[in-house]
Amino acid sequence: MQGIVEDALNEAGFETAIAPSAEDAVTLLKGKVMNYRAFVADINLRGRMTGWDVAKQARQIESEFPVVYMTGAAADDWASHGVPNSILLVKPFSPAQLVTAVSQLLNTATPNS
Amino acid sequence: MQGIVEDALNEAGFETAIAPSAEDAVTLLKGKVMNYRAFVADINLRGRMTGWDVAKQARQIESEFPVVYMTGAAADDWASHGVPNSILLVKPFSPAQLVTAVSQLLNTATPNS
Amino acid sequence: MQGIVEDALNEAGFETAIAPSAEDAVTLLKGKVMNYRAFVADINLRGRMTGWDVAKQARQIESEFPVVYMTGAAADDWASHGVPNSILLVKPFSPAQLVTAVSQLLNTATPNS
Amino acid sequence: MQGIVEDALNEAGFETAIAPSAEDAVTLLKGKVMNYRAFVADINLRGRMTGWDVAKQARQIESEFPVVYMTGAAADDWASHGVPNSILLVKPFSPAQLVTAVSQLLNTATPNS
Amino acid sequence: MQGIVEDALNEAGFETAIAPSAEDAVTLLKGKVMNYRAFVADINLRGRMTGWDVAKQARQIESEFPVVYMTGAAADDWASHGVPNSILLVKPFSPAQLVTAVSQLLNTATPNS
Amino acid sequence: MQGIVEDALNEAGFETAIAPSAEDAVTLLKGKVMNYRAFVADINLRGRMTGWDVAKQARQIESEFPVVYMTGAAADDWASHGVPNSILLVKPFSPAQLVTAVSQLLNTATPNS
Repeated sequence: MQGIVEDALNEAGFETAIAPSAEDAVTLLKGKVMNYRAFVADINLRGRMTGWDVAKQARQIESEFPVVYMTGAAADDWASHGVPNSILLVKPFSPAQLVTAVSQLLNTATPNS
Repeated sequence: MQGIVEDALNEAGFETAIAPSAEDAVTLLKGKVMNYRAFVADINLRGRMTGWDVAKQARQIESEFPVVYMTGAAADDWASHGVPNSILLVKPFSPAQLVTAVSQLLNTATPNS
Repeated sequence: MQGIVEDALNEAGFETAIAPSAEDAVTLLKGKVMNYRAFVADINLRGRMTGWDVAKQARQIESEFPVVYMTGAAADDWASHGVPNSILLVKPFSPAQLVTAVSQLLNTATPNS
Repeated sequence: MQGIVEDALNEAGFETAIAPSAEDAVTLLKGKVMNYRAFVADINLRGRMTGWDVAKQARQIESEFPVVYMTGAAADDWASHGVPNSILLVKPFSPAQLVTAVSQLLNTATPNS
Repeated sequence: MQGIVEDALNEAGFETAIAPSAEDAVTLLKGKVMNYRAFVADINLRGRMTGWDVAKQARQIESEFPVVYMTGAAADDWASHGVPNSILLVKPFSPAQLVTAVSQLLNTATPNS
Repeated sequence: MQGIVEDALNEAGFETAIAPSAEDAVTLLKGKVMNYRAFVADINLRGRMTGWDVAKQARQIESEFPVVYMTGAAADDWASHGVPNSILLVKPFSPAQLVTAVSQLLNTATPNS
């Protein structure tokens, strides 16, 4: 799964950084080592946090941060656990859906945020 | 505040039920005593739960339930604590903003949900 | 019902013309006696046509004509019988929902259409 | 035309099933042999039904089913014959427009529908 | 005209400040004497600037400032002279359209801007 | 930069015409040598006009013409200088963002405009 996501984003011209666990994702986002532009999250992650939790933390750092969730089993939970203005991709989805989701969110972000 | 909200909704033709605490709001929503159509929530509530918590519970009962939050101090938290497809009204707001918010959410809800 | 709809629209500042049957509605729209700006339609009408049929005819005359449907029983049919960019109000609805629906459609119509 | 559409969708990671006639398309959708996710329709089809008719039938089976129409001559008819929340592609269109249209509709569909 | 606009907004619960000329409107917006929340503009104004010009200046001060234009003759110009995410009301319009326009723009503004 | 934009659009199936200066872009759009479908504009152009100016002229010729701006330094100016219903791509952006932006605008354009 992770390889497919990475390939789809790279072929579309996005650079990707993979966090091995939820805690690492939060650390990366807080450290801003690179200038991250969007967060693509699996719901079930290694570690104690879910993708829902990481997205909330990302939004506390930057309130308009683009968020795309990918899930199979947990689709029903998006309406209660997802953040506003996020997109949910229900597995199985095509690479084009992922690329369009990220692009749509980046293209509607306000320019000076 | 509660009186203004109630008056604005009643004058617009909506019937309202007031929950004295967050826990009561959840009980009302679960009991479906009446057929509730939308949830208008203050963030700071009596009891241990916040408006963010009650909205999440409402969405777990019905995934497309319309949610409007009203807040003064906690506006920044909407991006991380709000549910998808909700509206945030930052105090002070006009009665018309509240009525428009509820109407917009009801009018875009899918008809057969 | 018709009186409530008329009152709500008139109080909001809209002038209304009531068609006694579906066929009359089509005749009024085609005749352009007044410059109609939007069509608010009940689904079950006197005559052989439904509100779905009249809306289709209105859109053939003017392709971006704002359309609001009001229905109790036929809500499920909107997804297959409604026209694009229309709004469905499921009965019972408040006067404010109707006024907001008409206003939203008028406000997003392109200015030079 | 059919080959270009199929190639564009396949390259984007979507699997496609081609219905040789409008009647076959309805049969396929009703049979749910595979789990169809969206309907991409030419307006002028073999058989007695048009693409408008097939889309209406698809929506009667599943009210939020994503629909994309492709047309050259019949573009004006979308406003009266199209279903709500559908997309019209006017020929000639690029493969990217088709892929984006399908992806947009899939990405905005509610997760638990 | 000005009286109708003022009455409609006041009845909806908004406080209004009237600028006697375009130049005064810019001065008021820059001075932030009160905390202005939205700008409702006629296109043809006293002084040398148009409503299009004042709106551009308002957006340079605050990039997400809600803007509603009101016009009779100049509707075609909105597509080239209007600012992004603004609403155009073509005269004659109802008080409800104006109130809905202002409310919609306020309700979709990001909370922490 | 120009080569990357051209490649991205061509690979997505769009034909492109490059205008060597702002004045040439206006001439091309007015001449309608080909049937242009969208305008992708850099802000800083050779000649005396900016991309903001050319887009305004394009919209005066055709009021719903799709416009995508690309900018690095001038992102803040979009809210005051951009035209309604345009998309701003802030550099650096990926080819997929550009293709999605153009496709989104083409797909939401009304069919009979």
